[in-house]
Amino acid sequence: MLRTIYEPIQEDLVKVEARLRSVCEVDFPWLSKLLAHSLKEGGKRIRPALVLLSGKFYDYDLSYLLPMATAVEILHTATLVHDDAIDNSAVRRGRPTINKVWGEDKAILLGDYLLGKSKELVADTQNLRVIRLFAQTFMTISSGELNQAFSAFNLEQTREQYLQRISGKTACLLSLATESGAILSQAPEKSVEALKGYGHNLGIAFQIVDDILDFIGTEEEMGKPVGSDLAQGTLTLPAILLLERYPEDNPVRRLFQNEDRQRNIELAMELVRNSSITEECYAVASDYCAQACHNLSLLPDNASRRSLIKLADYVVKRRK
Amino acid sequence: MLRTIYEPIQEDLVKVEARLRSVCEVDFPWLSKLLAHSLKEGGKRIRPALVLLSGKFYDYDLSYLLPMATAVEILHTATLVHDDAIDNSAVRRGRPTINKVWGEDKAILLGDYLLGKSKELVADTQNLRVIRLFAQTFMTISSGELNQAFSAFNLEQTREQYLQRISGKTACLLSLATESGAILSQAPEKSVEALKGYGHNLGIAFQIVDDILDFIGTEEEMGKPVGSDLAQGTLTLPAILLLERYPEDNPVRRLFQNEDRQRNIELAMELVRNSSITEECYAVASDYCAQACHNLSLLPDNASRRSLIKLADYVVKRRK
Repeated sequence: MLRTIYEPIQEDLVKVEARLRSVCEVDFPWLSKLLAHSLKEGGKRIRPALVLLSGKFYDYDLSYLLPMATAVEILHTATLVHDDAIDNSAVRRGRPTINKVWGEDKAILLGDYLLGKSKELVADTQNLRVIRLFAQTFMTISSGELNQAFSAFNLEQTREQYLQRISGKTACLLSLATESGAILSQAPEKSVEALKGYGHNLGIAFQIVDDILDFIGTEEEMGKPVGSDLAQGTLTLPAILLLERYPEDNPVRRLFQNEDRQRNIELAMELVRNSSITEECYAVASDYCAQACHNLSLLPDNASRRSLIKLADYVVKRRK
Repeated sequence: MLRTIYEPIQEDLVKVEARLRSVCEVDFPWLSKLLAHSLKEGGKRIRPALVLLSGKFYDYDLSYLLPMATAVEILHTATLVHDDAIDNSAVRRGRPTINKVWGEDKAILLGDYLLGKSKELVADTQNLRVIRLFAQTFMTISSGELNQAFSAFNLEQTREQYLQRISGKTACLLSLATESGAILSQAPEKSVEALKGYGHNLGIAFQIVDDILDFIGTEEEMGKPVGSDLAQGTLTLPAILLLERYPEDNPVRRLFQNEDRQRNIELAMELVRNSSITEECYAVASDYCAQACHNLSLLPDNASRRSLIKLADYVVKRRK
């Protein structure tokens, strides 16, 4: 399905893959190996696709869009490498993580190298507004993650705090992709705002679905263990709804109070699966996707706009 | 002594401190607390001083030099925060580390936030060459650190490999400071090269002295435990000379072969202290400082040049 959606930019996504491969070609063999492991094909490449699709409405100039598309994927990879080190995760995209194979120290340093590389690529856009936006987005992501770390195993979290958190953690990177694609193609300010809004709303929906799949997906589909949010003490929308529905006593509350963690994670997942909570969460995600599509209404109707609309649909329907 | 050296830029270093304090003023109280802890006064602030002093030969424009000076200090701090997490260090500058007080996950994320902030500040220079140089320097640092991590507890390391390693780990950040100061003050290309060379040679000397002090200093002077390089399995110049001098059997070899680590660290430190190795290492550092001063010869003679010459002298004489 992604293949059809990416159709208008398929050739250029191939160029992004080539750039990612060339990033792995460094003199230092260990670094080269770690880069190849982390940047290997197999990801959905949604972020570079968003840069390119967003660039298709006005002056589509690959000399700026290509480094930007590559940079957002590398920034995303850097955050995953650091996240896995932080969470001590063993598996990602069905493969062992950097920290699992080479140790946490290497994961921190590889993530740092990737951050530097992403900055270097963004400099190739020669656009100071995009360069600044890129830096600020990364600050928002790290501060969002810090916020999550400090609120781990805290039951007093509202739906609004959750939305704010995933806005900082996920949505801002997707809106960086769409906003920068627009800026780099000389889009008028209203269109920049529209594409930024699309990226933000798509990002919120994307993360809500991720959080649902952590309850109802399988490790096989996801390429990583499920139930991991609860294990890390992260309250996501399904867990918040579960707490609202059973305020007195429930497995999430018991788990966060450190009672028999594994058993309570399984019970919480079962409870979410066998209730209307899943459906309710999907309805929230769908609302954000509808809002995302609405953001596109003032843009010229072209193949790219149709792809972005289909992408919003895909984000809710995906199983991984 | 640093006070006298910094005299030509003393007022502007106060502005750097003010900028660093304003970086700590964020809405999120935990982040604010962590930033204040890591950016607190007490460091030598050599890197921002180098930016400012290097900017004093031509068009000294604080609107570019101030964000740059702040950015290099923040980048430096970010690498320290990540290093401490990697090495599981408990003390830095006489204070407990971020990882010690708040945990390793927070240290990784705070380091990331600082990296983003440094990049945002560099964007304020509005100079694409400096922006690119900044990104590349950080890649060199991370790849240098990765190199160090992969060569830990490896006895087969030459003096050349050591110099290459500290060039990537330390000298490149000092040369970033001097080179960017030159570029941002519109220095002619030859002066840019001269200041870059000065920064590089000063950086090599600085790191050699750091590595000597890890053998002969005291925890009280250094604000961190001594003998830490050997404990991490990092071969520095004193250890390499010791291995050369006693090729058959010596405490470094036994330590790297995992025999009674603490005892062998103490023996190695004693051996270095009571031999001419210390002197020999200082002679190497002095050579780099002489080379650094030589690099300055084509620059106009002014208070700043005199300070840079005195700084080269300070770097070898310092005890912390």
